[in-house]
Amino acid sequence: MRRHGKIRISEIFGPTVQGEGALLGLPTVFVRTGGCDFRCSWCDTLYAVDPSFRADWLPMTAHDILDQVKKLSGGRPVLVTLSGGNPAIQPLEPLIDLGQAQGFTFAIETQGSIARRWFAKLDHLTLSPKPPSSHTTFNAGDLAACIAAARNGMGNGPAITLKFPVADEADLAFANHVRSRHPDIPCYLQPVNATPAAPHPDGVDGVDLDALTERYRWLVTRVAENGWFDVRVMPQWHVHVWGNLRGV
Amino acid sequence: MRRHGKIRISEIFGPTVQGEGALLGLPTVFVRTGGCDFRCSWCDTLYAVDPSFRADWLPMTAHDILDQVKKLSGGRPVLVTLSGGNPAIQPLEPLIDLGQAQGFTFAIETQGSIARRWFAKLDHLTLSPKPPSSHTTFNAGDLAACIAAARNGMGNGPAITLKFPVADEADLAFANHVRSRHPDIPCYLQPVNATPAAPHPDGVDGVDLDALTERYRWLVTRVAENGWFDVRVMPQWHVHVWGNLRGV
Repeated sequence: MRRHGKIRISEIFGPTVQGEGALLGLPTVFVRTGGCDFRCSWCDTLYAVDPSFRADWLPMTAHDILDQVKKLSGGRPVLVTLSGGNPAIQPLEPLIDLGQAQGFTFAIETQGSIARRWFAKLDHLTLSPKPPSSHTTFNAGDLAACIAAARNGMGNGPAITLKFPVADEADLAFANHVRSRHPDIPCYLQPVNATPAAPHPDGVDGVDLDALTERYRWLVTRVAENGWFDVRVMPQWHVHVWGNLRGV
Repeated sequence: MRRHGKIRISEIFGPTVQGEGALLGLPTVFVRTGGCDFRCSWCDTLYAVDPSFRADWLPMTAHDILDQVKKLSGGRPVLVTLSGGNPAIQPLEPLIDLGQAQGFTFAIETQGSIARRWFAKLDHLTLSPKPPSSHTTFNAGDLAACIAAARNGMGNGPAITLKFPVADEADLAFANHVRSRHPDIPCYLQPVNATPAAPHPDGVDGVDLDALTERYRWLVTRVAENGWFDVRVMPQWHVHVWGNLRGV
């Protein structure tokens, strides 16, 4: 493990609030890493994924990252959300150790393709398997390895949630199949933000908010019809509030 | 206690999802009772509050209410959200007993003005003290009595949350003062839905969604500035999705 390796950072911003998933509305500083092993068809953070942006990814030490987080939070301990790209690629353990020693908590958002022993040290682990509409290949073993890593006894273990972006019926069936294999893990569904290539006349910053809201209504209808009363249907609320802007 | 009394029902609808607070996105059937001891300036459910609608409030037995809920849920156990008006006015204990025996769970939304021993039997208790902008009078003792009732040992006790509608700085100061007296209870803030009297050209069903979103952004800014990193800032999401329509 590259314990002393640098972490490739795309952006650090906040405090804002988490805009989606189990922690929606909770104040947090985002630490977005650069680089991803996936390339989802509807990726909304290409600037942290596509290697053509690699020059923008600053290699930083855990110490420098935490300093930047503290500068933003006024020195107060806050939830740090590790996102990407796929942050599981990066050597994040020293940052977690350093931050937790000073009262910070850590959440990670990852697709569940790469398992790390330090997942067990996190406070929150969001695993977001990518459905068929992403045009990526799902590996059930990789996801199971991530869950096992988080529960390896190295720490208290994080609160784990499954979060599925859903575009259509095939995605919904995928989500239901995967969650049925992990019935003890809370499941969150959210409409895919299928960012159009060009600005949309009815949207904000190129996002078609009406279509996103319509997809949410459809998701609620389908979840209710199926009687999946233990599944949470959440918006990508930050997109409604701030559009697809960076730094919010 | 009117254990065998009838419950005044304004509406029963669902399954839909909870649109606000700690359970946002969770499938639920709403049971809205008629009648309220408050009259908030910005009340968005006057049809369950104003006595002029009293003729619409059907007196129902716990058995009949649960039958209606089961009809809607296809017989499957689901979260039942007791709302109003102020549902704490009604004799809801027999409904909770009857439903829990069949696997249903119960959440209540109340302003915290009337304490009931059966709060202890609930699964979720949302206490929503009304801030200065409501033009009602807050009684700290009544709120404390509600919390004490929920923790009276009669049951396992519900998950309790505080939820504050916030319109302005005075409301924000009020929320912070009240939450500071109950530091062990998770605190949720949401922008007040100050429904205008007439349909708004930019809104849905008379709701000015842009103003609601702008108030959300303001809330996030103030919470971040104040370093209240343990407070959740949530939208009244259902208003964005369905407007102020009934039955959603």
